[in-house]
This record gives sequence, structure tokens and C-alpha cells, in this order.
Amino acid sequence: MTYLLNSPDDFTDEAVRGLVACHRDLLTQVPGGVARSTQTPQGQPALVIGGGSGHYPAFAGWVGPGMGHGAPCGKIFSSPSASDVYSVVRNAENGGGVILGFGNYAGDVLHFGLAAEKLRHEGVDVRIVTVSDDVASNSRDNHRDRRGVAGDLPVFKIAGAAIEAGADLDEAERVAWKANDATRSFGVAFDGCTLPGADEPLFHVEKGQMGVGLGIHGEPGVRDSRIGSAAEVADLLLDELLAEEPARGENGYDGRVAVILNGLGTVKYDELFVVYGRVAERLDELGLTAVRPEVGEFVTSLDMAGLSLTVVFLDEELERLWLAPVETPAYRRGTMPKVERAARTGIWDAAEVEIPESTEDSRACAGTIVAVLETFQRVCAENEAELGRLDAVAGDGDHGQGMTFGSRGAARAARAAVEHDAGARTALLLAGQGWADSAGGTSGALWGAALTSAGGVFSDTEGASAQNVVDAVSAGIDAVIRLGGAKPGDKTMVDAAVPFRDALEEAFDGEAGPAVTEAARVAREAADKTADITAKLGRARVLGEKSVGTPDPGALSFSLLMAALGEHLTR
Amino acid sequence: MTYLLNSPDDFTDEAVRGLVACHRDLLTQVPGGVARSTQTPQGQPALVIGGGSGHYPAFAGWVGPGMGHGAPCGKIFSSPSASDVYSVVRNAENGGGVILGFGNYAGDVLHFGLAAEKLRHEGVDVRIVTVSDDVASNSRDNHRDRRGVAGDLPVFKIAGAAIEAGADLDEAERVAWKANDATRSFGVAFDGCTLPGADEPLFHVEKGQMGVGLGIHGEPGVRDSRIGSAAEVADLLLDELLAEEPARGENGYDGRVAVILNGLGTVKYDELFVVYGRVAERLDELGLTAVRPEVGEFVTSLDMAGLSLTVVFLDEELERLWLAPVETPAYRRGTMPKVERAARTGIWDAAEVEIPESTEDSRACAGTIVAVLETFQRVCAENEAELGRLDAVAGDGDHGQGMTFGSRGAARAARAAVEHDAGARTALLLAGQGWADSAGGTSGALWGAALTSAGGVFSDTEGASAQNVVDAVSAGIDAVIRLGGAKPGDKTMVDAAVPFRDALEEAFDGEAGPAVTEAARVAREAADKTADITAKLGRARVLGEKSVGTPDPGALSFSLLMAALGEHLTR
Repeated sequence: MTYLLNSPDDFTDEAVRGLVACHRDLLTQVPGGVARSTQTPQGQPALVIGGGSGHYPAFAGWVGPGMGHGAPCGKIFSSPSASDVYSVVRNAENGGGVILGFGNYAGDVLHFGLAAEKLRHEGVDVRIVTVSDDVASNSRDNHRDRRGVAGDLPVFKIAGAAIEAGADLDEAERVAWKANDATRSFGVAFDGCTLPGADEPLFHVEKGQMGVGLGIHGEPGVRDSRIGSAAEVADLLLDELLAEEPARGENGYDGRVAVILNGLGTVKYDELFVVYGRVAERLDELGLTAVRPEVGEFVTSLDMAGLSLTVVFLDEELERLWLAPVETPAYRRGTMPKVERAARTGIWDAAEVEIPESTEDSRACAGTIVAVLETFQRVCAENEAELGRLDAVAGDGDHGQGMTFGSRGAARAARAAVEHDAGARTALLLAGQGWADSAGGTSGALWGAALTSAGGVFSDTEGASAQNVVDAVSAGIDAVIRLGGAKPGDKTMVDAAVPFRDALEEAFDGEAGPAVTEAARVAREAADKTADITAKLGRARVLGEKSVGTPDPGALSFSLLMAALGEHLTR
Repeated sequence: MTYLLNSPDDFTDEAVRGLVACHRDLLTQVPGGVARSTQTPQGQPALVIGGGSGHYPAFAGWVGPGMGHGAPCGKIFSSPSASDVYSVVRNAENGGGVILGFGNYAGDVLHFGLAAEKLRHEGVDVRIVTVSDDVASNSRDNHRDRRGVAGDLPVFKIAGAAIEAGADLDEAERVAWKANDATRSFGVAFDGCTLPGADEPLFHVEKGQMGVGLGIHGEPGVRDSRIGSAAEVADLLLDELLAEEPARGENGYDGRVAVILNGLGTVKYDELFVVYGRVAERLDELGLTAVRPEVGEFVTSLDMAGLSLTVVFLDEELERLWLAPVETPAYRRGTMPKVERAARTGIWDAAEVEIPESTEDSRACAGTIVAVLETFQRVCAENEAELGRLDAVAGDGDHGQGMTFGSRGAARAARAAVEHDAGARTALLLAGQGWADSAGGTSGALWGAALTSAGGVFSDTEGASAQNVVDAVSAGIDAVIRLGGAKPGDKTMVDAAVPFRDALEEAFDGEAGPAVTEAARVAREAADKTADITAKLGRARVLGEKSVGTPDPGALSFSLLMAALGEHLTR
């Protein structure tokens, strides 16, 4: 239950405000989340960590010397938006590049990924590290495809320590991945958690049972099992992790492990210690040495009744970084070396960003972009009901609305930019952000990424050629594939976009309009053919069979907009 | 709910074992609780803090440099026994005396007090500091009679910092009391907590309501109230505390406050931060400065859904000590100065204590003591049923059993000591411990204290005179009054003991037996007269009216044992 709130809508923002008010020495509130109260030293890589709220101290509680430089804060159990991530990076990065660290969840991958696209177009060196420690969520061979749970703590702790010790971006990224690859977690829950404002938990576990291999966003366990004694639960967790213990005496690992016993919300500290007593006993028996073990609440899941055990198989480097000093609101250890840390001099705010200088040629091109986006807006509105109907067959029925909201947001952002004399590049970058912010969801992030990447092809100081248009469309499609991770045959937008790109390259002979129109015809055929496929990704995964006979709404909307683009360019 | 345990009986012990296993660098398990893993420097006062379990990180989580030297650990919500306290002090004290710090609860006052009696008889300088910050539990004028709740954190933090900075025992005690007198707390709960092994919480709060001014052992609030918004709850808590704000600009206080927002168990961190946001806003409005505020779980109450707010009105000295570095399992701040801390060289264990040398005269006296205690055991057994019946009228009916268990434990301990050639003093000290350990409850602690104090009158190297006997009985009664805090007329043992002591002094003319017999007659009359009184203390407080017409069983058992003593001494 949540007892204390003013309004469910403002809950997360108010919690961030309270956190910063409590830790003014360490944290500053910035648009989209928090950053250190001190400036990142010039050239030092920034570690920006985040995810949804409801997991405190993850992630904002770990910002400070020796760990994170900033944390975008999403709503409860929801990824921060790409704009949140972008804004926090702008407040944390200072010429050394940035590592975006987050748990491996589809929403986070999309929104952090979209922010990364935009930052890279602006010349920031961005590395992405997805934590994937939860052994319940995928096989050992696919361990980088697993979910991230309490392994966030050691991975970000170790990466932050490497940066504090002077690592550059390559080195910090290497260490972060190494820590992730050495980390395994497994958890059980006795009852689900309740979202603020809700009366009932997201799931219940039957009395006397526990969900084994649960997630931290209300995902129930992969199986139910009788709750045994504390010792039996300790054994269950430890055995599962040690099944993946690397060979001792090889690759610098020799039986030394960081151990984290993490309470998810309402399990009492005394219970955790009873379990840890057994873990310690087992480690001794097995000849394993626990290095600075931690028992407490680190990656919570609101008020979930459950716990997880994390083990990091250490070599000398990981152990040194695990033990290094750290000073954050919720994680402190040892003695931070006395270093002059300059106070933050200002806060980057999107609202105060100035439009870069542009030439008349580029402004003319930006005008065309606005017109195209307004056409997109009209086409989406006309097709909203039909796209929604198609999506409802095996999805949640919001694709039509998402496209309408997104295209409207993009058109508005581009028009506002042009009114402030933006060139083509800036207009498209802001349109991409406007689409993602207004639409939300997967399609919003992908269309946002597409416009952002397309914008990178243009410039604010030159006009655009037909080749630019083709390259921009192609760059947008690349971004969708890169960010969305879908392959042809998964029944997504990609099933129309890839044939479109191929047809466009073939048809292009110097004039963009006819080539786009021809490629859009191919895309429409491909979209219609997706009716024969079973959906494999996203929400449709669960209802995949039901989708047979209905075309993919994302593929269809893509072909509709490309047809409109072709028509516009041909006029 | 408690989900993770092996057996309810061993729950606390196993939790302590797990805690120590997790923090081997800071803690060592000792009989009765935990102590630092390092030796207390010779002559440094020891701060021994404790209370029942179920409040983690209070108290064992606060043992380490800059805070506690040791913590006796009681069962869930139960005071540690006097033997636990004594044992931890023996492992923590190193010639500088000891401060016993605990929340002001009857059980803790008794058991820590009993340990203090014994330690003082052995020459240890013991100071007692009872934390009393809960404004809901008594009036402002009687603030030292209030309960201790989350104020434990700043009081022990500040006292520990003073000691780390070099304070001697007088100075450390002064600072601890000063911190306590500057500290105020107030809490609310939305639902009660559940003891390990139990199915239902100790109390329920009606949905939509909150208990205001609750305790941390399942004591419901002093009133129920509708749950308001988070801001309203923040205002309610803060207003109650600031009603006792001292005048600014006087006595070194100028609007600087330590602030602790404490979650009691299942309230989410995000909720706490939402509340803190409002607290911070109000403090700003009121011109108050929060100094190193803390939001988190500090003094929990198992899985209670609730929170409390604590404010310490700081002067320069308190602020400096509040901000000083500290390094304990659950509370870390700043940089501990690099100080050589010698590792602990051994663990004191009652089982390994040697019986001091004694003379034949003293051993003869010890033999008499054993005989008296065996007589006590027989008299208690004969009267067990009747004492139980009397106690059941307005109490919990266990007085007869407690006296039987206690007297048996005392007789056994004394006999075992005598078999190892103990003198009179040692036999009685061990008998006192045996009584308290075997009986439990209030009467067990008081009789234990009485025997312990009586033992202090004797020596292991000299025989005993009749005057010694009278002095010993008198010292025992003094201890009961000092420790139990009852006044004549409260309907307790004191109503028989005080007239007994007066009559004994008057009747004594060099021979103990007849004088004790005469005084016991007076005591019996006084005990019978307690039937006319309404009980005012302890459990009987609630059922006081029902007690009229029945004599107090504690007063009666006292007079029965004194009559038996007189008879024995006259033989």
C-alpha cells in the first residue's frame, strides 16, 4: 500500500524533490532527474544511471563521488523519457563522454537509446551498458539478454570507482561490462507490490507459497514453490547462482565474491540477517570468501515482500573497485580521498537552449520539413481509428492514438523551431524529441529516433539535395532497426521499412519524390503481407497467435506516411 | 508478516549471527549480543546501547567507531536480560566506565538497571541514559519520563562522537543527556506489525485512518485520525515537535536542527521523500536550517506501516558531534580519522569466569546463604498456586510461577558456586543473576537486583555479622525501590518492604533472627492491607479497579520469604 502522497501524478517528482532537499550536499535537481551538486571534472567520463522510480536507493540514491554522476528518474516502474535522459546527460557530461547504465528492459533500452542517438549526433561519445544479472530471465548462454535487478549496485559501483580512479571512457565501459558479466542475481517474492494510488498489489502469491525468479516491476515469478525455512530459501538462491560460478584459479577468479542480500521492500532486516547467516555458512563450507558483503535494501520494488541474492565473481581489479570509497545519499563506504570538487555553476534546461544560427537555404528546407510533418499529422489523424482497431487485435490498441499524438508533437516542435529561425537539422532534431515526448510507448521512441537520425543528415547552414532526403530516410530506418532490435519477420514496422529502403535505393535516380512513392508502394505491399505472420515481439508476443490475419499496424502506418512523403515531394 | 525464519525461538540469535557474519570487520558476537571487533582503548568510556530486537538498525547496527561499543540484543520487542547487558559490558568496558543507553521502557530500565547494580558492586562506573524523545507519551514537563523512539539515533550518535573525541565518562554522560533533552519525536502508523511466527499484526488501524503517537512495540496510537495528504501528515508531525522548540538565540540554539524522517518498516522510501519535501519546505518558511537531515529506516518496528519525525534542537556542540564521522554497519558518515584500533584479544564469557578466592569464614556464610535460598525455594513452591491466583485477579497470573522459577534458579546458582568454593559475596551475586535469568518479568529483575545488592554487603574474605545481615536486607530493599521506581501506595512489593525495613531497624538489637521475624510480621500486615489499594503500576494499571479487595501478590510473597528468613536465622 501507498499511504503518503499528495497526488499520484506528482508522486515521483515530489519524491525526487524531497530526496534532493535531504541531500543538498550531494545532489542537485535538474530537468529530468538529479545530478551531482558538483561539476564533473573536464574530460572525466560521466556515469548516468537510471530507470523507473520505485526502486530507491536505485538509482538517484547512488549519485555522488565514486558512483553515478546523474540519474534520470522515470515514473514508478517506467523508463525515464529520452528527454529526461538527454537532459541529465547534458548536466553531467563534461567532455569525457558518457556511460548510460540501466537495467536491460525494453522501455529503458528504447528511451536511453533514443537519447544516445541524439547525443551522438551532437558529438557526444555515448556508451551503453545494460545490466543483465537476473538468472531467472534467460539462459546462461544469453546472459546479456537477461533482466537487470540488484546487480545494478555492484556494476554501477564498480564502474563509478573506475572513473573516480581515472579511467577514460573506453576503460570505464570495459570495466562496467566486465562487472556485469561477473554478476548474477536470483530472487523470490512472497507477495506483490502496490502502485501508488492503487488498492491492490500487481500480483498476489498464494499464502505459504513464494514466486521464484520474480522481476522488480511486478513481474511474477517463473514458478511458484512452497516457502521453506530461511535456510532452505538461502540454499535455493545460492545454488542457483553458484551453478554459474566460473572455474576457480582461471582468469583471475579464485573464490572471492561480492555478496548482496537485497530486501525488496517489506521483508524485515532481521529476516534478511537470518538468511544471510545461512549464506555465510554455506560460503564457508564451499571455500568461498565474501568480500564486503551487504545486507539491506538496495534495489527495491516499492513494498514488495521478497528478497534477492546477488553474487559477483571477483578478480583483483573488480575487488579493488568494489572496495573503493564511495559517497552517495544511500551508499557510503570508506574514506573518499580529499579532492577539490568545484560546485555546479549552472543547470542545463531544454527550455533555455538557443536555436543555432542557420542559413536561408537551410531555413527553406526546414519549412518543407514542417509541411511534411503537418501532412504526417493529418494522415495519422485520418487513420487513427483504423490503426487502433488493428492494434487492438493482439496489442493494447493505442497505436493510432500514439501516432496521432506523436506526429502532432513533432509538427508543433518543428514549427516552433522554424518560428525561431531554426535550420533543417535543428528542426528535425527537435521534431524527433517532440514525437517521442508526446507519443510515449515503443512506436513513439522509434519514430522519435528516426526523425532524430534523419536530422543528423541535414545541416543548419546548407540547403538539402535529393540525395540528402534519401540518406535521411535511410538513416531514420537504420535508427529504428538499431534501437528497436526487431528483425524482418518479427511482425513490426521493420517488415515494411527494410523493403522500403531497398526499393528506394533501387528506384532513386536523382529525384526523391517518385522514388519514395515507388518505395512506399512496395512498403504497403509488405505491410499487408504481415497479416500472414505471427507477432513475436513486445506486448503482441503473448497474444501472437491472435495476430494472424491482421497486418501489423506499425508496418501499415509506416507505409502510409512514406506514401504521403512521396506525394509531398513529388508536388 | 514474517516469511523467513528457521524457528521462532532462535530467530533473534540467528539474526545476530547473520549480522555479525556480514560485518566481521566491525562486529564480534559476544554472549548476550555484539561488541566492536576492536578493543576499547584503555580508559575510554564504553557506550553500550540496546533494547529488544525488531528495530534494526537500532541497536546492533550502530556498533562501531564513533558510536556504540557494544549492544546487548533482546528477543523481539523484549529487553535484553541483565545477564546479556552485563556480558556485553564486560566485553566492551576497559577501565573507562560505561554508559548504558536505551529507550525509556520499564523492561529495559529494570534489566539494564540490574546489570548496572552488579557492575557497580564490582567497581565499574556505570551511568544510565534513558532516551525519552516521544512527545506522545508524556507531557512536556515530564519529558524525561517519555518513551524512547527514533531519538535513539541522534542521542547515541552524539554520545559516541563525544567519546571518540576524547570525552571522559562524566563528559560523555553530560553530552548524552543534553542530546536527549534537545530531541523530540512524533510518529503515525497506518497498520501494526506482526511478530515472527504470528499470523496477525499486534493491532490494526482502520482503513483510511492512522494511529497518531504510536509506540514502536505495537503500542497503538494515542488517537486515531483520518490519513491526510503527505503534506498534511508532514505538517502534523512537524507542528507537534515545533510546539516544544526552545527560544531562538538563547542557550546556543539558533534555529539549526538535525532532522530524521524514519520509516518504521513498510512505508516506501519514495513516500518518505514526498513527506520530507514538505518538511523541508516548512523548515525553510520557518527560518529553520536542517543540518545533515536523514530520511530512511533507522529505528524500525518489524514491518509496521508508519513513520516518525525527529528533530534535535542543536547548539554548536551538539551540531559538531552530530556531524562527526561514524562508521557502523548501518550508519556511516564522513571520514573516520585513521586511528590504530587494536583487534579484540578475547571474548568474556560468563561460563569461563573463575570463582574468586575465599576464606573459610566466608564460605561458611555462603553455606548459610544456600540454605536460606533453598528455604525460599520451598516456600515459593508451597505458595505458588495461591500467589498465581492473586496475581490473576488484575495481572497475568504468573507471579507464583515466576517466584518459584526465580528462587530455584537462585538456589541452584548459589549451590553451584559454593561447590566451587565461592565466598558469601560471590554466592549471592551469582544467586541474584540466577534469579533474574530464571524468572524473567518484573519480579524476577527486582529479586535479582535485591540479592545482587545484598551480596555487595558481604565479602569473600571475611565472615558475616548480624549487622551484615541487616545491612544486606536493607541494601536489597533499597535496590528494589531504586530499580522498580514504585512508591508506597502503588500496590507493589514496596508496600511491604518499606514497613519491613523500618521495623527491622527498630527491632534490631544485635541479633538478626528475632528482628527479621518481627519485621516480617509487620510486612505481612502491610501486605494484607494492600487489598484496600487500587493498583497503579505495571500491567495492573489497566485493570487497577479489579484489584481492590485482593492483596498485592508481590507484597505478600515478600513477607512470606522474610518470615522464612527470620525463622531460619533464629534456629
